[in-house]
Amino acid sequence: MKPQIAIQGIQGSFHHQVALAYFQDAFELVECLSFEAVADSLLQGHATQAVMALENSIAGALLPNYALIDRNDFHIVGEHYLEIQQNLMALPGQSLASLQEVHSHPMALLQCMEFLKQHPHLKLVEDKDTAETARRIQAQQLQGIAAIGSVVAAELFELEIIAPQIQTVNNNLTRFAIVSRQANRPSAQINKASVKFELHHQRGSLAAVLNVMSDCRLNLTKIQSLPKIESPFTYAFFVDVTFEDYADFEKAAALLTLMASSFKLLGIYQNTLV
Amino acid sequence: MKPQIAIQGIQGSFHHQVALAYFQDAFELVECLSFEAVADSLLQGHATQAVMALENSIAGALLPNYALIDRNDFHIVGEHYLEIQQNLMALPGQSLASLQEVHSHPMALLQCMEFLKQHPHLKLVEDKDTAETARRIQAQQLQGIAAIGSVVAAELFELEIIAPQIQTVNNNLTRFAIVSRQANRPSAQINKASVKFELHHQRGSLAAVLNVMSDCRLNLTKIQSLPKIESPFTYAFFVDVTFEDYADFEKAAALLTLMASSFKLLGIYQNTLV
Repeated sequence: MKPQIAIQGIQGSFHHQVALAYFQDAFELVECLSFEAVADSLLQGHATQAVMALENSIAGALLPNYALIDRNDFHIVGEHYLEIQQNLMALPGQSLASLQEVHSHPMALLQCMEFLKQHPHLKLVEDKDTAETARRIQAQQLQGIAAIGSVVAAELFELEIIAPQIQTVNNNLTRFAIVSRQANRPSAQINKASVKFELHHQRGSLAAVLNVMSDCRLNLTKIQSLPKIESPFTYAFFVDVTFEDYADFEKAAALLTLMASSFKLLGIYQNTLV
Repeated sequence: MKPQIAIQGIQGSFHHQVALAYFQDAFELVECLSFEAVADSLLQGHATQAVMALENSIAGALLPNYALIDRNDFHIVGEHYLEIQQNLMALPGQSLASLQEVHSHPMALLQCMEFLKQHPHLKLVEDKDTAETARRIQAQQLQGIAAIGSVVAAELFELEIIAPQIQTVNNNLTRFAIVSRQANRPSAQINKASVKFELHHQRGSLAAVLNVMSDCRLNLTKIQSLPKIESPFTYAFFVDVTFEDYADFEKAAALLTLMASSFKLLGIYQNTLV
């Protein structure tokens, strides 16, 4: 039986593109309307794994998704990096000049604002979902209307890419997590971990933790603090580390469990950014 | 002459609420359509200072605003914390049951989803701006339509609060920066600093920096890493510290200038969270 992979969005979305890259087509797609619905589909067993964007180089961490993973005690079992490239697409046989409107999610419109400013004849119309718009243009054979989205969406919905890579900022690398209710077991391939811990606000407390990590030969690849509003002077930290030997990580984790007030392992997995 | 304060949004927005709290009404408001426009108004001298949201406890850091401050060499000269409270408001004399639609920014709708789910007779309509919707309800005397927004918006546009504090998550504390082209000078009131620095990805490099900060008696109140995509294996860090003696900070800054590949002071100001 093929694994069922839940994503936020529909076929042709960037989450779908990541699922295709990670699971090589050998999966059944579970389309969800929100990240909350993605979490529900894991909890109810409608999906075995899920793909969730975790952070990108423009907006930073998507903390609500970290919170979903943390709150539901999900495990990160893999990661995938995707460079977000937006393309202008429409029914075949049309020119840029002949298009009248661009329909897309506000965020996608914003990401392509420089390009859209150069073509002021295009009326911008906000829509719910980038891929859904592409699907509708094909289903209703909408002439004169363009969508913004992934190459996968153009292929799936048989639209022609009128202008490729129209995003303003290049290098918008987005990191996606593969999330599951079951944790990975340590193996030779496992060389990265995501952890969360809390520290009381005391001078040098974070430096002490990072010293332990460094002593245990862990490399820090991400750190983010988050003040805990409900308990002032306590900070939560989300930290990713890479390591060569899992035993090194185990030792650090044992020490941090003693040093930090609530150390939690969010997942161990294979590092894919080299 | 009153200082001119630029904000993203219009009167009645949360940014306006922060300007009122910080400048005590003794200012002229410069309404801007985007954060980019806020930056432009500072650059062109249309505003002397600006209010910019920097981070909140749900979504985390608003990195694009950090980037605006960094790229334009603006200085953070103050901070203000506001707990975001959303209220359902409409023309006076209506009951919740008699309302048919709620118009608001998608983010505000999302923040109030639990409340809105309990009142499924309300049709949700996405709009550009929360305060702008409140203004239009008053201007066009729209019966049966509610807006979501701040108490300040309800007062300004003479709407009645039908349901107060309808946000799902309480404790959504948002931190705003007061931004200027001129930096503060050191004084007895100055006890906080925001800095940015870059480190080559080398085991223990961040721990070494935090050790220096701790040795110089700085307290870390925020840290966030950001991989630099255009130069792999280099990380940028945004860090906030508090201190009792400015001389301690000066010493740490001098050391970090030597240790990190590009140390930049984003601003010194008075800590307002105690």
